[in-house]
Amino acid sequence: MHAYRSHTCGALRPSDAGQTVRLSGWVHRKRDHGNLVFIDLRDHYGLTQCVLDISSPLFKQVEQTRVESVVTITGKVVQRTPETVNPKLPTGEIEVKIEEYFVQSVAEVLPLQVASDEDAGEEVRLRYRFLDLRRDKVHRNIVLRSKVIASLRQRMIAQGFTEFQTPILTSSSPEGARDFLVPSRQHPGKFYALPQAPQQFKQLLMVAGFDRYFQIAPCFRDEDSRADRSPGEFYQLDFEMSYVTQEDVFNAIEPVLHGVFEEFADGRVVSPMPFRQIPFDESMLRYGSDKPDLRNPILISDVSEVFRGSGFGIFAKAVELGSVVRAIPAPGAAAKPRSFFDKLNDWAKAQGAAGLGYVIFDAAGAKGPIAKNLDEARLNQLREAAGLKDGDAVFFACDKKLAAAKFAGAVRTRLGEELELIDQKRFEFCWIVDFPMYELNEDTGQIEFSHNPFSMPQGGMDALLNRDPLTIKAFQYDIVCNGIELSSGAIRNHLPEIMYKAFEIAGYPASEVENKFGGMLNAFKFGAPPHGGSAPGIDRIVMMLAEEKNIREVIAFPLNQRAEDLLMQAPAEIPASRLKELSIRLDLPMKKAGQ
Amino acid sequence: MHAYRSHTCGALRPSDAGQTVRLSGWVHRKRDHGNLVFIDLRDHYGLTQCVLDISSPLFKQVEQTRVESVVTITGKVVQRTPETVNPKLPTGEIEVKIEEYFVQSVAEVLPLQVASDEDAGEEVRLRYRFLDLRRDKVHRNIVLRSKVIASLRQRMIAQGFTEFQTPILTSSSPEGARDFLVPSRQHPGKFYALPQAPQQFKQLLMVAGFDRYFQIAPCFRDEDSRADRSPGEFYQLDFEMSYVTQEDVFNAIEPVLHGVFEEFADGRVVSPMPFRQIPFDESMLRYGSDKPDLRNPILISDVSEVFRGSGFGIFAKAVELGSVVRAIPAPGAAAKPRSFFDKLNDWAKAQGAAGLGYVIFDAAGAKGPIAKNLDEARLNQLREAAGLKDGDAVFFACDKKLAAAKFAGAVRTRLGEELELIDQKRFEFCWIVDFPMYELNEDTGQIEFSHNPFSMPQGGMDALLNRDPLTIKAFQYDIVCNGIELSSGAIRNHLPEIMYKAFEIAGYPASEVENKFGGMLNAFKFGAPPHGGSAPGIDRIVMMLAEEKNIREVIAFPLNQRAEDLLMQAPAEIPASRLKELSIRLDLPMKKAGQ
Repeated sequence: MHAYRSHTCGALRPSDAGQTVRLSGWVHRKRDHGNLVFIDLRDHYGLTQCVLDISSPLFKQVEQTRVESVVTITGKVVQRTPETVNPKLPTGEIEVKIEEYFVQSVAEVLPLQVASDEDAGEEVRLRYRFLDLRRDKVHRNIVLRSKVIASLRQRMIAQGFTEFQTPILTSSSPEGARDFLVPSRQHPGKFYALPQAPQQFKQLLMVAGFDRYFQIAPCFRDEDSRADRSPGEFYQLDFEMSYVTQEDVFNAIEPVLHGVFEEFADGRVVSPMPFRQIPFDESMLRYGSDKPDLRNPILISDVSEVFRGSGFGIFAKAVELGSVVRAIPAPGAAAKPRSFFDKLNDWAKAQGAAGLGYVIFDAAGAKGPIAKNLDEARLNQLREAAGLKDGDAVFFACDKKLAAAKFAGAVRTRLGEELELIDQKRFEFCWIVDFPMYELNEDTGQIEFSHNPFSMPQGGMDALLNRDPLTIKAFQYDIVCNGIELSSGAIRNHLPEIMYKAFEIAGYPASEVENKFGGMLNAFKFGAPPHGGSAPGIDRIVMMLAEEKNIREVIAFPLNQRAEDLLMQAPAEIPASRLKELSIRLDLPMKKAGQ
Repeated sequence: MHAYRSHTCGALRPSDAGQTVRLSGWVHRKRDHGNLVFIDLRDHYGLTQCVLDISSPLFKQVEQTRVESVVTITGKVVQRTPETVNPKLPTGEIEVKIEEYFVQSVAEVLPLQVASDEDAGEEVRLRYRFLDLRRDKVHRNIVLRSKVIASLRQRMIAQGFTEFQTPILTSSSPEGARDFLVPSRQHPGKFYALPQAPQQFKQLLMVAGFDRYFQIAPCFRDEDSRADRSPGEFYQLDFEMSYVTQEDVFNAIEPVLHGVFEEFADGRVVSPMPFRQIPFDESMLRYGSDKPDLRNPILISDVSEVFRGSGFGIFAKAVELGSVVRAIPAPGAAAKPRSFFDKLNDWAKAQGAAGLGYVIFDAAGAKGPIAKNLDEARLNQLREAAGLKDGDAVFFACDKKLAAAKFAGAVRTRLGEELELIDQKRFEFCWIVDFPMYELNEDTGQIEFSHNPFSMPQGGMDALLNRDPLTIKAFQYDIVCNGIELSSGAIRNHLPEIMYKAFEIAGYPASEVENKFGGMLNAFKFGAPPHGGSAPGIDRIVMMLAEEKNIREVIAFPLNQRAEDLLMQAPAEIPASRLKELSIRLDLPMKKAGQ
């Protein structure tokens, strides 16, 4: 018989009864019934109940084994009596009568309990991550992560993509977040940088003719941590394609995302393909966000004209001065008590708004301070524009266009939550398309890139030469699910002359473009294909599928919020000789310099 | 019709004749036949011949397009006449008559030719890697690499392994090669290190109960470059398994390696499973190496006893003083001219040997200076021990055991090459097993670990307590193919008490073990399963399959030998403000300090 196991702890069934088997695993639970001792033996695959009666010479040893010790048990499989069957366990119809017992590795007293959902606190959990990872939920999360990534890979390969490895020791990015730097030993005074994303390499692979690239790519940003952002490294499903339009990109990646969400949906509903495409302007108007949560059925409307010249002076005057009024319906809220409206008003004030005006429509007609100042025609116009029926209420956001949109979006989210309109069992995908290429910086009066300067402007050179820059859209798109942006993407600008012009409009002279982005520009001068792609965040996908709010729950060995690895003691001090070899020395902040 | 292509450049066949198609790609070659111009249009998938005659208004534009420009061609597929069919091309039976022609991206004059095998020099190749990667051989190598890795992944998953991502920002290793360091911004004076391998994390995953881990793992060593070692990062098929013996590890990974080599063998023969297992001592004796090239049929023998007390005084005396004599047969070499033996003698001297003695066996009997000093009985003993027949020669290595073994191994390799005995079309795998746990440092007289201090000693604690340490073997193994070590591996020592004892024998007090390896030791105190694994080098596997001698030929964007990325300009100087933020400053070598 094998030294450690003939079966895993998840394998045995009634059909195995009578066999002598060997199992190895961790002592998950131990129950002492006086003349019987039960051990729930756990491994990666499951849990098997093992039992020994007091007549055995092994009794004392088994009874004294500390939980989480590793033991090897040899014994006979017996069918449990009907009343002792555990229907929740795949092995719940059998147990193993212990005949031989060997302790492979003794566990000391545990700093956190494995067989318990009790929160041990992040400090202890990360310091003893090897124990924390044994706990059911985290263990399942990490396995889910692995399965999601394996599935993404298979689906990408099935779509004709090839995985490449791009360098991790590379150069500092000219733009974006802060890089991690790596001093070079061989080149004193010089540094490598860890890639924030393989953006330049994937574009170079397209220029090199590889056609369809992907990578489960480790990315590095030296940024402070957030619940949904790990402070060091994170992974994205990085991909890029040549000779494609925006529609081709969508058609290639939708089956991958839809497929992987369906695979791990576990009863949740995934919105069907093709995913909705919502122009940026429409998204800002109807959802008050470029990351709309489509599970929320509330749709915002522009009702500026309802208030223009109306008796409700505050809004009428604001509209006259260039503000807009947005209506956010609250379906069925007419029946809510006054406190519901007061609470929302308080919340709005806490957000910096003057308040949150509303109208209630019930069988008796329109009610509330604003309603009093609107005539019947305007009230009807409002009902129609905002899609209201008796029993609904409607709230208003009045401000300059962008501010009104954002505030209306916040109200929409808040109402969705308060009224419990958001179905937690759905994944609602959409693409946000037609992002503006430029925006006006209201402080400086200058035209700036609104998102990605490397996207191809819609209309190409002709648009750049002949149109008001603020009306030009880019071939840029975001994939959004349940209000979470999984990724930006774009059809890239692969033509140096269009790139120079696009940057000129945003105030960059050619020399600066060459200085900052010379590497890519140079490559584009030797025959570059039209290309585009995106890079959905993998940690976020796994968080959504695992229904976790904190990214550290889906990473095996995460850094903590202070970017420390408590288990491996990183970062750590380094001997001076190593620094010397790297031609650097410490330059500690003053308060520490005197230490 | 699609904006860029209805087909790829590898797709069209005679059955498509008559269709109007659209292709996009690079102008690979242009042939001007006066009144006809031919363009070989290339993309990732293949090459299609396109043709235009002088009557077309497009003629001048097509004729003037520079090679490697990106163009889109629309036209009719026509079958070629039998005499113009190109049987080497999958699309060689058709061509496309150009009707529309659009230049997507113009190529400047090229610094290296894509449609040529001419060596452009490493500097130019790496600076313009995006062009170099378009060349057929490199392009195919990189695709091969991707396919090999995808195949390894699928095979590992089929063997029940799960892929995990382990941290890239971690702590400095206590042992091994030099780490790359990353200064921490949030923790002044502290550094992360990039992992030399995920060794500790994979063992922690086993302690965490995950059972079968693998990862296509990026690893980082700040070492100087070699032909088979990239100076920065490299990839390994890192794996680890719980509750396994050494045989289980072999049984799990052999199908993966055998399968992937078979898949990409392309006519080459892969040694069958199970792979041979050769004990370290036998390998050193019979092959003069712990990395034997089994394609070489020559087997070394110990013939010390043939020479003990013989008339060949030099060897006889050496044997008396504790040296050994090893015989290296040269099959069929009796017919070689004197110059063959002289050349080998010169080579041996260049290696630091006194010379390379030999005996020739032909129909007339044994010949050569050594033979004269051996009687018939000894010559027969030699023939039998070394497996010699008429027509063979035999060479000798006489020295202390290890030196004789190594020199005999070098002679064996040299003879294999000179006599062309090494079949280049075979992949011969073996495991080297039973490595010694300890060795004697002859300078200090101290016992040292001979290989991996973290391997489980065969015989466990009992062996450590009761046996001469120099006779203890470890559960350690190397996987070797064609004389190249793909990886070391081991059943790990998972028991703190055995680890303390093993280190004590090598002269380390418990305090030092705790200080250096406290992280792992601590984890092993909370229930650790027996576990083991290995980590075959992926770059080396791809090099073998691609028949490349230089690792840079199988990496898309390699650093050069000076650890520079010539394309992305890494490493690079960094603004002082960034260093300040990281609490470091430069400490340049003196010769540069005055700049």
